[in-house]
Amino acid sequence: MKMRNYRLAIVALAFVLSSAAAQDVRHELQFPDLPGYQTLACDLHMHTVFSDGSVWPPVRAEEAWRQGLDAISVTDHIEYTPKKDDIPVQHNRPYDLTIGEAREKNLLLARGAEITRDTPPGHFNAIFLSDVEPLNTEDFVEAVKRANEQGAYVVWNHQGWKGPEKGQWLEVHTKLYDNKWFHGMEVANGDEYYPDAHQWCLDKNLTMMGNSDIHAPDLREKSAAGEHRTMTLVFAKDRSLDALKEALFAGRTAVWYKDQIIGRKEWLEPLFGGCIRASKPHVRSKDAVWAEIGNTSDVDIALERTGNAGPVELKLPARTTSVVKIGTNAPDQPLELSYKATNFLVAPKTALDVTLTVPGP
Amino acid sequence: MKMRNYRLAIVALAFVLSSAAAQDVRHELQFPDLPGYQTLACDLHMHTVFSDGSVWPPVRAEEAWRQGLDAISVTDHIEYTPKKDDIPVQHNRPYDLTIGEAREKNLLLARGAEITRDTPPGHFNAIFLSDVEPLNTEDFVEAVKRANEQGAYVVWNHQGWKGPEKGQWLEVHTKLYDNKWFHGMEVANGDEYYPDAHQWCLDKNLTMMGNSDIHAPDLREKSAAGEHRTMTLVFAKDRSLDALKEALFAGRTAVWYKDQIIGRKEWLEPLFGGCIRASKPHVRSKDAVWAEIGNTSDVDIALERTGNAGPVELKLPARTTSVVKIGTNAPDQPLELSYKATNFLVAPKTALDVTLTVPGP
Amino acid sequence: MKMRNYRLAIVALAFVLSSAAAQDVRHELQFPDLPGYQTLACDLHMHTVFSDGSVWPPVRAEEAWRQGLDAISVTDHIEYTPKKDDIPVQHNRPYDLTIGEAREKNLLLARGAEITRDTPPGHFNAIFLSDVEPLNTEDFVEAVKRANEQGAYVVWNHQGWKGPEKGQWLEVHTKLYDNKWFHGMEVANGDEYYPDAHQWCLDKNLTMMGNSDIHAPDLREKSAAGEHRTMTLVFAKDRSLDALKEALFAGRTAVWYKDQIIGRKEWLEPLFGGCIRASKPHVRSKDAVWAEIGNTSDVDIALERTGNAGPVELKLPARTTSVVKIGTNAPDQPLELSYKATNFLVAPKTALDVTLTVPGP
Amino acid sequence: MKMRNYRLAIVALAFVLSSAAAQDVRHELQFPDLPGYQTLACDLHMHTVFSDGSVWPPVRAEEAWRQGLDAISVTDHIEYTPKKDDIPVQHNRPYDLTIGEAREKNLLLARGAEITRDTPPGHFNAIFLSDVEPLNTEDFVEAVKRANEQGAYVVWNHQGWKGPEKGQWLEVHTKLYDNKWFHGMEVANGDEYYPDAHQWCLDKNLTMMGNSDIHAPDLREKSAAGEHRTMTLVFAKDRSLDALKEALFAGRTAVWYKDQIIGRKEWLEPLFGGCIRASKPHVRSKDAVWAEIGNTSDVDIALERTGNAGPVELKLPARTTSVVKIGTNAPDQPLELSYKATNFLVAPKTALDVTLTVPGP
Repeated sequence: MKMRNYRLAIVALAFVLSSAAAQDVRHELQFPDLPGYQTLACDLHMHTVFSDGSVWPPVRAEEAWRQGLDAISVTDHIEYTPKKDDIPVQHNRPYDLTIGEAREKNLLLARGAEITRDTPPGHFNAIFLSDVEPLNTEDFVEAVKRANEQGAYVVWNHQGWKGPEKGQWLEVHTKLYDNKWFHGMEVANGDEYYPDAHQWCLDKNLTMMGNSDIHAPDLREKSAAGEHRTMTLVFAKDRSLDALKEALFAGRTAVWYKDQIIGRKEWLEPLFGGCIRASKPHVRSKDAVWAEIGNTSDVDIALERTGNAGPVELKLPARTTSVVKIGTNAPDQPLELSYKATNFLVAPKTALDVTLTVPGP
Repeated sequence: MKMRNYRLAIVALAFVLSSAAAQDVRHELQFPDLPGYQTLACDLHMHTVFSDGSVWPPVRAEEAWRQGLDAISVTDHIEYTPKKDDIPVQHNRPYDLTIGEAREKNLLLARGAEITRDTPPGHFNAIFLSDVEPLNTEDFVEAVKRANEQGAYVVWNHQGWKGPEKGQWLEVHTKLYDNKWFHGMEVANGDEYYPDAHQWCLDKNLTMMGNSDIHAPDLREKSAAGEHRTMTLVFAKDRSLDALKEALFAGRTAVWYKDQIIGRKEWLEPLFGGCIRASKPHVRSKDAVWAEIGNTSDVDIALERTGNAGPVELKLPARTTSVVKIGTNAPDQPLELSYKATNFLVAPKTALDVTLTVPGP
Repeated sequence: MKMRNYRLAIVALAFVLSSAAAQDVRHELQFPDLPGYQTLACDLHMHTVFSDGSVWPPVRAEEAWRQGLDAISVTDHIEYTPKKDDIPVQHNRPYDLTIGEAREKNLLLARGAEITRDTPPGHFNAIFLSDVEPLNTEDFVEAVKRANEQGAYVVWNHQGWKGPEKGQWLEVHTKLYDNKWFHGMEVANGDEYYPDAHQWCLDKNLTMMGNSDIHAPDLREKSAAGEHRTMTLVFAKDRSLDALKEALFAGRTAVWYKDQIIGRKEWLEPLFGGCIRASKPHVRSKDAVWAEIGNTSDVDIALERTGNAGPVELKLPARTTSVVKIGTNAPDQPLELSYKATNFLVAPKTALDVTLTVPGP
Repeated sequence: MKMRNYRLAIVALAFVLSSAAAQDVRHELQFPDLPGYQTLACDLHMHTVFSDGSVWPPVRAEEAWRQGLDAISVTDHIEYTPKKDDIPVQHNRPYDLTIGEAREKNLLLARGAEITRDTPPGHFNAIFLSDVEPLNTEDFVEAVKRANEQGAYVVWNHQGWKGPEKGQWLEVHTKLYDNKWFHGMEVANGDEYYPDAHQWCLDKNLTMMGNSDIHAPDLREKSAAGEHRTMTLVFAKDRSLDALKEALFAGRTAVWYKDQIIGRKEWLEPLFGGCIRASKPHVRSKDAVWAEIGNTSDVDIALERTGNAGPVELKLPARTTSVVKIGTNAPDQPLELSYKATNFLVAPKTALDVTLTVPGP
């Protein structure tokens, strides 16, 4: 009895002192929803002390929450557990230790793990598992098969990374692919972008993913243009794990990597459209109009003119409004301006074509 | 003909080089509109090289625009023109030189001036003038009268400032007041707050104003909690000079001064309500609920509990969401939490009482 | 054989990916050395997953190193180990796991632990232990005694914290004190300052300490005025653990807490003197001189005039130079300006008296 | 008499209110002096309301001072004065209005002006004039000749800029050059770099210059890697206008442009050497040492290995220390590591070769 009070007292201590950090707020991310879908910011690849990461699992929930993410998966390595002398291996513990914090913060948490083999085949993440332990088996293909038997969504991670055979699509990948045992690829992982993975996602109808693969503590207070983790925007029917899973299997994603948005044209078009707000001109002359063009999102947008009207180049920084002067012979008509969004990639080195519509009076 | 080309060439040069600064975007301010009114961020007191300021007048429009303001008035001193040896005095020039830039930027610009006399009576701003020149007359009361004849909105500036008789309400003020020749007072000016002015506005039904009175270049890129100019939020029927003027005469204002919002309870209540977004609880236990409380505005909000439920203290930083745990015997019922917003002042040293409503399931 | 390669490959992966964070540089702190002593920035109170912290121990070395600290001690609770179901208790492991990283980074690391008991007596840190295990004994006084038998430096932590009897100096403290079994007190811990502890350090000749007591990851990239952990500046004969220990027992410390420096007058005087650089005047008039006064340190300095000459108030932000105009009848003579440094505390609510000397021509 | 008091009162008002901006401190720049020379940070090209700039002249002194510069010249256009209807043209006024502020701030100010003609010949700055007026003459060559008769230092500005014949070295330039009537070229101006000018400076023994050419207010509080104006580092015998002039004629400069230092090998070698501090190793193993390498300057330094030892790549951010592991067979010997500093340009696209010396024990 006395002991119980004692424990409570000290628990309270830890809370008071750590709360001093005052990081306990969430900075909401600004990305538009798509028609019929809610945009969820997700990071489905990260590590903790239960494999080779350096934080206690719930820290991953706190980091993601304060940075405005909607869903994460803690995906410790199954086969690589360098801290096992201090922390006995239990593959389900990272999830079990994090789910309380995640629920309290209203953050979606999927149980996941990283199947970790030398290249080839490389590393694969299995998300939406019910139990990680069965995946701890010697045969790689068997491990992936077991993940699929649990209904997992499986991703080939950082495809272009590591080893003499890195980056190659080999027989083992074909085998998995033909069985529909993996469903997505990391187009970007941390600071790296993989153009082959990008192209294969297009060619083979795999889902494009971007993840942080973070091991150290994430020092970023918020996600903003210029200081965000690599993440996946998922266009889901609602904000739930079920809807997230459905959207991932359906391939409705875009990747936010450095200053770029990478994804299928089908999703980048409405995403771009939702970021931009063009007002009807507030000044007109005989041969020009002045209109406000706002970028309400957290991504900086860079445009190059492909048509005849409008500035040759437009930089629309995140969360700002620009005034644009547009030469025109018909200043009292709506204007359609043709551009390409050079940092919205619909394929490797291929920018999204967009139209800016400036309304008439 | 050749000369004209020459001029154009050099004009273009100036544009290219100065655009290098890349400050040419607007950071929209986040304040809620009020029922029936649009919230306009205004600064109606500032100086240029045409009196004792140090910038060319259109710079004031650029600064205000990039910081998200909606309306300004350039109010150079009429009687104090220390640069007159270099810049011949022309009281209407600051407006005339700024209006082009303001229109292009979609910023409202009112013609104004500061009637500048030793204390007493002190300095008075006249806004919405049609011609500044007639105010340049020796008799102070006559100058104010002429401003009123033009329909101007007149403000007693920085009431607590300067001289042995500073801060006193004297006969001259009564005379103006009885004639309804002045209509507002600066409750805050730059870094200074005037509690007497605050109280008098309440007692005498004068409009509360906050202005920057800026003389030097304003280095701030944007307005944010912790780095904004002192300004007035005006609740206007629409975003026009006419509506702004109507609202000022009607007293529909609040002042954003440092970390405080100062105004009548009538306006602070809906303003506070518009800043807060409380979600229905995302977790419930037998004796508590967890709910998200968001502050969507650009002002940090500090709350102290006055009722029985909810945390004793709540800090809701600008543009963030907090998760709040609330103890309750009826976790399936809506909750009404009584607080005071310690940085929303309805009178000197008097905080606004507020209710946070957490919806039921 | 194959397995070994496999392990190496994956180790390298972890390195490459985590280095992406690019936090791998040290921001040197700017504090002057004192005559005969080197100033060491120290934090001797922090936690890891081995008690109730949330990071792997070497993270504490990385954080401290990048923030410019010279010495730390990882002081996990001995009696409070809430993660013991996942991490079997081994009180020496935090040090053993951190020392490699510390050595590589050239950071001093002292083996330490926190003896953690309900108040009274409260929590005590023992630093410079050779073995933590013997301190894990039921009798509190015995635990402290054993720490002393190892030559440890013992600190009463966060004296004003927690419990109905918090903050009191009771018989048990007298017993320890009379035996010289504890040697310092935390005057500041994280966000809290303890004026009683401050006064007792003066009255009873105990060493003043300031520590972070950090549990969560420390997000700060560097230490700077306005964004630094609470720490102790120790004036040591050289940069070694032996010299650090000697200086702590000798009481040569100052505490950097928020915007304040707290310590004995004996050390604050030369510390202040070392922060300030006053140049000989660069302009002279008949009745004034203009001189540069620089603050080369990382602490903002606030001065109030106590004498007749110089500005009434001086703010000298960290790492900046100010130009000060000083009225004087003898502009060709050196000037001695009397001030108090309002944020250098030599006792509770007692500012350090200082003299600014402006050299003659 | 009363009037005088009145004026004083209002002058004081302006001071109090503008000081609210609290930008009144100087952030010292960190660049090493060179053997025998003091490094002066200079910007010798900028504009005010007296031509096409938008600030009152002393603002240029305030900006430069707070950003840590040592010397400036206000160089308004002689022939291009778009504000002349409001500000009667007086070419010497910018200097005359600024010199008081400059002296008070201990900032060196040279009288200068920009001879502004369509391309060719383009724009030329004349610095260290005694009187600008005589340069206001129709014949361009005559204007440059008159500047030289005053002993001015003359610079061909932004050589690659503007017009169909932009960037060409024509007969008129040869004429000036053969007469030694111009002495330097802007290798960088604002956001632009001119590789031709860079090469010509090397081939024709002209002094390399970098200037801001700022027209708008400069919002930057300080100069730092990533947020500084383009400027010239001048290696002068002392901190005086005479020494500055001697150094410019002698060609002892380097240009800080974006993240690059551009200059002759002769000056970049000691400049680089002065930025770097390599400590003797603090850890040694059989086949490696760990040493600290510090960059004490305000420029980020990027290194690529050209020899056999040391990391392949080294990023040394401004004002930070890095720990570097260096493989070696002789860990007890000093090490000479061969690199090129990829952002120190000794010619267009040509990096400076450097040696990092790690001392022995």
